[in-house]
Amino acid sequence: MQGDTDEIPGIGQYDDFHTIDWQRDIARDRMRHRYIVKKRQDSIWDLIKGAHDAWSGWVCVLLVGVCTGVVAGVIDIGASWMTDLKFGICPQAFWFNREQCCWSNDEITFDHGNCSEWMTWPQLFGESRDGPGAYIISYLFYIVWALLFAALSASLVRMFAPYACGSGIPEIKTILSGFIIRGYLGKWTLIIKVVGLILSVSSGLSLGKEGPMVHIASCLGNILSYLFPKYGRNEAKKREILSAAAAAGVSVAFGAPIGGVLFSLEEVSYYFPLKTLWRSFFCALIAAFILRSINPFGNEHSVLFFVEYNKPWIFFELIPFVGLGIIGGCIATIFIKANIYWCRYRKYSKLGQYPVTEVLVVTLVTAIIAYPNPYTRMNTSQLIYLLFNQCGISNSDPLCDYNRNFTDVNSAIEKAAAGPGVYQAIWLLLLALILKLVMTVFTFGIKVPCGLFIPSLALGAIAGRIVGIGVEQLAYNYPKIWLFSGECSTGDDCITPGLYAMVGAAAVLGGVTRMTVSLVVIMFELTGGVRYIVPLMAAAMASKWVGDALGRQGIYDAHIALNGYPFLDSKDEFQHTSLAADVMQPKRNETLAVITQDSMTVDDVETLLKETEHNGYPVVVSKESQYLVGFVLRRDLNLAIANARRTMEGIIGQSVVIFAGPVQPLPGPPSLPLNRILDMAPITVTDQTPMETVVDMFRKLGLRQTLVTHNGRLLGVITKKDVLRHVKQMDNEDPNSVLFN
Amino acid sequence: MQGDTDEIPGIGQYDDFHTIDWQRDIARDRMRHRYIVKKRQDSIWDLIKGAHDAWSGWVCVLLVGVCTGVVAGVIDIGASWMTDLKFGICPQAFWFNREQCCWSNDEITFDHGNCSEWMTWPQLFGESRDGPGAYIISYLFYIVWALLFAALSASLVRMFAPYACGSGIPEIKTILSGFIIRGYLGKWTLIIKVVGLILSVSSGLSLGKEGPMVHIASCLGNILSYLFPKYGRNEAKKREILSAAAAAGVSVAFGAPIGGVLFSLEEVSYYFPLKTLWRSFFCALIAAFILRSINPFGNEHSVLFFVEYNKPWIFFELIPFVGLGIIGGCIATIFIKANIYWCRYRKYSKLGQYPVTEVLVVTLVTAIIAYPNPYTRMNTSQLIYLLFNQCGISNSDPLCDYNRNFTDVNSAIEKAAAGPGVYQAIWLLLLALILKLVMTVFTFGIKVPCGLFIPSLALGAIAGRIVGIGVEQLAYNYPKIWLFSGECSTGDDCITPGLYAMVGAAAVLGGVTRMTVSLVVIMFELTGGVRYIVPLMAAAMASKWVGDALGRQGIYDAHIALNGYPFLDSKDEFQHTSLAADVMQPKRNETLAVITQDSMTVDDVETLLKETEHNGYPVVVSKESQYLVGFVLRRDLNLAIANARRTMEGIIGQSVVIFAGPVQPLPGPPSLPLNRILDMAPITVTDQTPMETVVDMFRKLGLRQTLVTHNGRLLGVITKKDVLRHVKQMDNEDPNSVLFN
Repeated sequence: MQGDTDEIPGIGQYDDFHTIDWQRDIARDRMRHRYIVKKRQDSIWDLIKGAHDAWSGWVCVLLVGVCTGVVAGVIDIGASWMTDLKFGICPQAFWFNREQCCWSNDEITFDHGNCSEWMTWPQLFGESRDGPGAYIISYLFYIVWALLFAALSASLVRMFAPYACGSGIPEIKTILSGFIIRGYLGKWTLIIKVVGLILSVSSGLSLGKEGPMVHIASCLGNILSYLFPKYGRNEAKKREILSAAAAAGVSVAFGAPIGGVLFSLEEVSYYFPLKTLWRSFFCALIAAFILRSINPFGNEHSVLFFVEYNKPWIFFELIPFVGLGIIGGCIATIFIKANIYWCRYRKYSKLGQYPVTEVLVVTLVTAIIAYPNPYTRMNTSQLIYLLFNQCGISNSDPLCDYNRNFTDVNSAIEKAAAGPGVYQAIWLLLLALILKLVMTVFTFGIKVPCGLFIPSLALGAIAGRIVGIGVEQLAYNYPKIWLFSGECSTGDDCITPGLYAMVGAAAVLGGVTRMTVSLVVIMFELTGGVRYIVPLMAAAMASKWVGDALGRQGIYDAHIALNGYPFLDSKDEFQHTSLAADVMQPKRNETLAVITQDSMTVDDVETLLKETEHNGYPVVVSKESQYLVGFVLRRDLNLAIANARRTMEGIIGQSVVIFAGPVQPLPGPPSLPLNRILDMAPITVTDQTPMETVVDMFRKLGLRQTLVTHNGRLLGVITKKDVLRHVKQMDNEDPNSVLFN
Repeated sequence: MQGDTDEIPGIGQYDDFHTIDWQRDIARDRMRHRYIVKKRQDSIWDLIKGAHDAWSGWVCVLLVGVCTGVVAGVIDIGASWMTDLKFGICPQAFWFNREQCCWSNDEITFDHGNCSEWMTWPQLFGESRDGPGAYIISYLFYIVWALLFAALSASLVRMFAPYACGSGIPEIKTILSGFIIRGYLGKWTLIIKVVGLILSVSSGLSLGKEGPMVHIASCLGNILSYLFPKYGRNEAKKREILSAAAAAGVSVAFGAPIGGVLFSLEEVSYYFPLKTLWRSFFCALIAAFILRSINPFGNEHSVLFFVEYNKPWIFFELIPFVGLGIIGGCIATIFIKANIYWCRYRKYSKLGQYPVTEVLVVTLVTAIIAYPNPYTRMNTSQLIYLLFNQCGISNSDPLCDYNRNFTDVNSAIEKAAAGPGVYQAIWLLLLALILKLVMTVFTFGIKVPCGLFIPSLALGAIAGRIVGIGVEQLAYNYPKIWLFSGECSTGDDCITPGLYAMVGAAAVLGGVTRMTVSLVVIMFELTGGVRYIVPLMAAAMASKWVGDALGRQGIYDAHIALNGYPFLDSKDEFQHTSLAADVMQPKRNETLAVITQDSMTVDDVETLLKETEHNGYPVVVSKESQYLVGFVLRRDLNLAIANARRTMEGIIGQSVVIFAGPVQPLPGPPSLPLNRILDMAPITVTDQTPMETVVDMFRKLGLRQTLVTHNGRLLGVITKKDVLRHVKQMDNEDPNSVLFN
């Protein structure tokens, strides 16, 4: 029934900021599919077209996976080169980053690991490598480069693609739930987001590239879906590709294909049939495989902070792990509340009018404060890697300044007292924690591409490492306590502070995003050992519960609410007792705008269209007996009438519009049959239906509106907007904040 | 509205072989939840009850996880002891299996690895260890023990719990989709399934314990859910626990918690809200953790065939991997078709009446044929482990009879020509492949607990190993071909036949079960390396496509269809163009059984209940104006009338039954108000609704029936049974094969 309407141009598409009708789009696709299957028997050419159609989903996700992997490689290489550019340059080959420049030298360490091939800026200017003058020159270069990168990034975003700012995940959640934001996943957004992301990551701001990677992958998914009309011209089907693309984005960001699929399933996707699961997995895997083949970090893994531990954890350690979960939940809640407060302030004050200035100020402050502390000066990914790692023989950072001698690489690490370097490192880390927390609050939301996975992980890793060192030293100093007496009685180091850092990182990230399974799986894929899932899970659960107790929403949902996107969360249960009759429009003393099936003229209909602004109208038997016949969309009605006036003869204002019933020649002008655009199968509910059932139907069936009847008689309409406003109202929030057309 | 009805005893429960109404059950649970939340403010006691209620889901899955882990440990230990009992006994401690018995000796190898502590049966009877007499005695003991175990298992199942037979996964899929099979998840089924599983695995039949573990875990989930009325007394909520339990079952079967969750999500579950995902993960993890703590195999991993490889795969190897996928798909299709043919024959012939005899015959034949071939004689899990493994320094099996010398454990394995042992092993493996395939066809479906994960994996592993050895020898003999010239030009062995075995195993299992993501993740968790996902995925995809091309259904779906379970597959799309009007009951020339809202007497209603057998009746305004008021269930109507006759005064046959409208005192006997049992919010569709939308609504909303209207007037009813029969009819199958009440 809907498939026929394709002959009227424009039908089946949506305007900007509208919600899509999943049922209708999926029905259209099934119609198209049946047509292709039927035609397949006609000729070889149709058979090939049919095969192409059957394969196109796989080809499309393959392309998305390949492109995502390549783009991620470009971003990783670019960002790593430009990050190092802040510190110096490789004169032999300026396109090498520090690590590549030093490859011939084999002396790669983290902090002061400059080899002779790599020239720091002071060296280029003839200064010695370490002196007060060199320090100041380095400091200045660091700030100037940071400002330059940030300014470039912010200007590009402001000039060419305002949608390229932020992490994009709240918007992608909204888009995947069936909302149209034109241009949000377009080619300009893609290009500017890639370039801007490299620049803003390199500028040393407290932000990460992981969230934007999801946006970039979704842009690729959107653009590539236009190669396949099956997906490009059907908004519901397109979202299958976008779900797969989101999985690929996380997959390349963390080198975690399974985690990516679960992230897409758990966090961003809305309509996720099982077919999509398999395709998403394929897409995520291809992307990870391509990125690994590009090998941007020159190690075997596609993420910078892949780690392996050689000690199992001890059962009693669950206590500090849960403690870390609680700390993580608290840090996350502080972050969310402060960030939302600041973003709301930005939105409703003059600050919002100076995005580039704001970026520059934030960058300047970050650069000035970050440089003196080695832990904030270094790339955040490197910091996380450093904190996750065990103190092995090759690690010369002050964090590993223990009173122990390494005799052999293979022998176990012995238990040892922390040296002064460790205590100094703890103070610096505490400072870094506070600084990063404050800076991230101000950074997340500025108008450059910025994600917060990495800052969250860093916050948690710092807290976790500090707790871990504490527990480790406790075990060293009091080995006789029954807790430690079992496993720690041998001389080996029984506590791995790096594992605490990882657990803490998971806790904060879990608290901020309220991810659960996907978080644990991503962290699991980072370590590659099933052994540490239990600690990670304990911390993630504790953190989520603390977070849920202190503030209802994760950062993405909070941003969705702040921006008023029409997102009907499938995780929140509708808890109230209202009935459909309480929510439907019109209210008691208004009348419902309806169209009758065979007694209104074209003029009547056009008057109705002018006087009301609804997106659709129920069609009833007659004004007196309002029994429901069907539903017709405003857009279709406009198009069909315009089309009829253009192509059919004799259609004038007095022509009767016939939606159903026998089209017999009436006296007077010829009537206008519009049964083709009438949806004869609108979803209806009775007025006594509890709203929880109605909300459930909106979510699961992807409705745009439902009609309310009582004993068969039409009473009113509930649109998605009504549902969203009602949910807001019930939660004591402003129902008018929902952005909608 | 539905919550009030709890006061009439028995309302809200279901009869055996009925489908549940998800909407109604979930609405009941929300009602209960709201009541508890409201009462929480009344007293401390209510607050505690509220907290208990909030926690009960987590506590329940925790208990399920712990119990599943413990039961899995018991089964693993029991089966391993009894399997070894077929070969000999440990005289010092008869409860030790061979490996434990030999622990002091450190000479554990697979085939002839008998240490001096372990007495084989011939030794006990004074024979020498290897002689013709010893061989015959061993052979006889093997057969006798096998028959004994199988007879015991089959008799226990037949006498105490007929539901304990088979793998149980088809039935669990059906139960999770909302069907009631009383006793299928009961305590007797649990006990007999555990005991019978140990016996049947030990009997050497070609079956595995992995599928039944899912059934056992689900039994535990069902039994433990009765401790928490929130789950035990609400069939829809109970299925959340059952989904988590299924995940735990797979988790302990393969030591793969993430794979278990995905299996539950992809394969068995139907209603899987995201909250369930997190709980399932928790449950699966706890189960795996407990099993690992029990450590039944004495190694670090909770599965017998955990492997690690030290060589990456080469890109061109994708060609043989895809080839293996195709072979796997073909083997799987042959297996499914033959097995279904045999099961159908069993079902409709006299064979079905002699289950114990059949088990004994199959066991006897299996034992006689299996013993002479070392690869079929050994435990199937051990065979799989052997085939998955690399040929290292410690492996003395003929499969590893290469012309190479090991000088050092750490050095790379050099490329080598296969010795005569390898060629002999290939012949034995080919024989084993055919034998296992044939025996598994006859075994899967006999009346003992039996799964087919392990046999499928074994079939694939054999095929894969043979292909792997072929490719390896090709690379050895023709190192100059461009394919091999890159990676194989050094002296190292560049092809790992064990990896081919794993890929082949995944291919056959994927073809048999049509699992996709969960299969790959399970295999990934077995190897623990993200590196081998791409080969596994390539083979799994090829196998699934070949399988789908050759036969539409996986083994579980085929068994569901064979048994006629009312399962509405959420993966199959409904492809036809029929409308609701074509499917609804009654057909054109029959009349619809309805109840009027205020004009039928108790006698009228009881006559209607006697004359018709519907499970529910629409309530309409009046006979003349059939506008829909609501829907009432037969069961509720029976209970409410009986209850009223018992408790209300003056209710006689002539009392008017009032469902809606003003209950004013009429002349005559007092009227019977039944508005409490009337569902005022039945889901309706119009007669023009395409069946694909209706099927979608049944699936997504978990409906039991929907009412069909035209212009507000009631036309008919579509029940789940009608939908299932229509789907069967459209697929040219017998619609009367659907089992249903």
